[in-house]
Amino acid sequence: MRELLRVRGGAAGGGRIDLAAYAPSAIPAGPSDRAAGRAVTAALAEPLAELQERLYAASTAGGRRRLLLVLQGMDTSGKGGTVKHVIGLFNPSGCRITAFKAPTPEEREHPFLWRVEKALPRPGEIGIFDRSHYEDVLIARVRGLAPREVLERRYGEINAFERALAEDGVTVVKVFLHIGWEEQRERLLRRLDRPDKHWKFDPGDIEERGMWPAYQEAYERVLERCSTDAAPWYVVPADRKWYRNWAVSRLLLEHLEEMDPRYPPAGFDVEACRARLMAG
Amino acid sequence: MRELLRVRGGAAGGGRIDLAAYAPSAIPAGPSDRAAGRAVTAALAEPLAELQERLYAASTAGGRRRLLLVLQGMDTSGKGGTVKHVIGLFNPSGCRITAFKAPTPEEREHPFLWRVEKALPRPGEIGIFDRSHYEDVLIARVRGLAPREVLERRYGEINAFERALAEDGVTVVKVFLHIGWEEQRERLLRRLDRPDKHWKFDPGDIEERGMWPAYQEAYERVLERCSTDAAPWYVVPADRKWYRNWAVSRLLLEHLEEMDPRYPPAGFDVEACRARLMAG
Repeated sequence: MRELLRVRGGAAGGGRIDLAAYAPSAIPAGPSDRAAGRAVTAALAEPLAELQERLYAASTAGGRRRLLLVLQGMDTSGKGGTVKHVIGLFNPSGCRITAFKAPTPEEREHPFLWRVEKALPRPGEIGIFDRSHYEDVLIARVRGLAPREVLERRYGEINAFERALAEDGVTVVKVFLHIGWEEQRERLLRRLDRPDKHWKFDPGDIEERGMWPAYQEAYERVLERCSTDAAPWYVVPADRKWYRNWAVSRLLLEHLEEMDPRYPPAGFDVEACRARLMAG
Repeated sequence: MRELLRVRGGAAGGGRIDLAAYAPSAIPAGPSDRAAGRAVTAALAEPLAELQERLYAASTAGGRRRLLLVLQGMDTSGKGGTVKHVIGLFNPSGCRITAFKAPTPEEREHPFLWRVEKALPRPGEIGIFDRSHYEDVLIARVRGLAPREVLERRYGEINAFERALAEDGVTVVKVFLHIGWEEQRERLLRRLDRPDKHWKFDPGDIEERGMWPAYQEAYERVLERCSTDAAPWYVVPADRKWYRNWAVSRLLLEHLEEMDPRYPPAGFDVEACRARLMAG
């Protein structure tokens, strides 16, 4: 499944990315409908939690490996919903979740990767970024928050940063939640319809929506420049929430299976400990 | 239910606590067996998640309130299992979980509450401490890690600290997971029986077990001195995992219901936003 969603960008030998060619309502390789999708996703909970436990267990014996899920996408694309429904399948104690907002004054005084480094998963953990360092080449590009040459440099800095992470044992899984223009409108309207969803709505979301083409182009550049062998991007069609949840769960499962973490052997004398416990 | 498990300690007008009078295998006010317990606990997931969402939503409009669950108990009492099964019912993005280990050299250079303050939940969040500042009057007392007069002073410092938290909008729920001596032996033996549980076993756990009476006494002093109106202690019988999960879930539910968080009203013109969205 993951090969199907993987972006073959410039750095990985591919060419131009045209997001218009990706249907946000598609369900590639997925279950055929919502009921099946939910059932199959729920069935992934057990293998995911076991792989997570193995990963954590390995870290107690000095293993350095961990996984980092990076979630990007337009407003309402389902970043928060993915954390709730997919990361909710894991043991919360091994998850390190960070939602990146507009940088604070302190963060703005540091290089853009500073706050990201502080939020990285520790060995054995699963890290989740709801938005990430990619905002510094997305909103920063669309809103002109940095000179063009700085933006250009950042793609390379990001690739070097992620390569270093991979060399340090971090499996980086970058997911672009791809929703369509009409689906976003419906989701924003639904938030307005329900008083219990008003807190999720920000009139600023309408301004951002007005820059939709510029954002799509900024995402295309990201997918072209920063989908590397060390840290590929995956485009997940996200108009259907059940498909999105299934696809991200599957991506995590496939990466964890490939990592194949193992329970460490006992570093003590099991029989001697048993005898002491029986005696005491 | 919470009044039943609540400790009436010295600070709250009660007298001496004798843990021998609390049966670790009891199931006060709970479902009658495991199947029923699991079903009832699972049914709490939806109301818990909704209350959590309301709490978080309120914080987006400036609300300061949050909840802090403090978990303490002997090795194998189920602190980690409670996080997995009870906190797993919540949306992970609103949970801030910290497992406190032996203090690092940096932490030892600071007052004992320093590392705790850094781990507090932010407004709208649910914080979870797997062990806590209470270790500084538990293992510190049993192992003599601090002079007796320092230990004595800490009870008062803890009470003042927790009172200040309550005044700042933090609902503090302190749970002592109470397991029995024989149940601990069985759980430790089970970890030895299963190679996939060896990573959870530390021969040092046997040394700690050897100090069981001193630990029980240290817990009794904590329950007497630090169960306050601002931050009461609850003793949860923990020999039965299903009861423990149900009881902690119920405690959280009752506290969240009492907090009664509300979705904030829209801070913008809903109809104007709707019109803009329809037009664009």
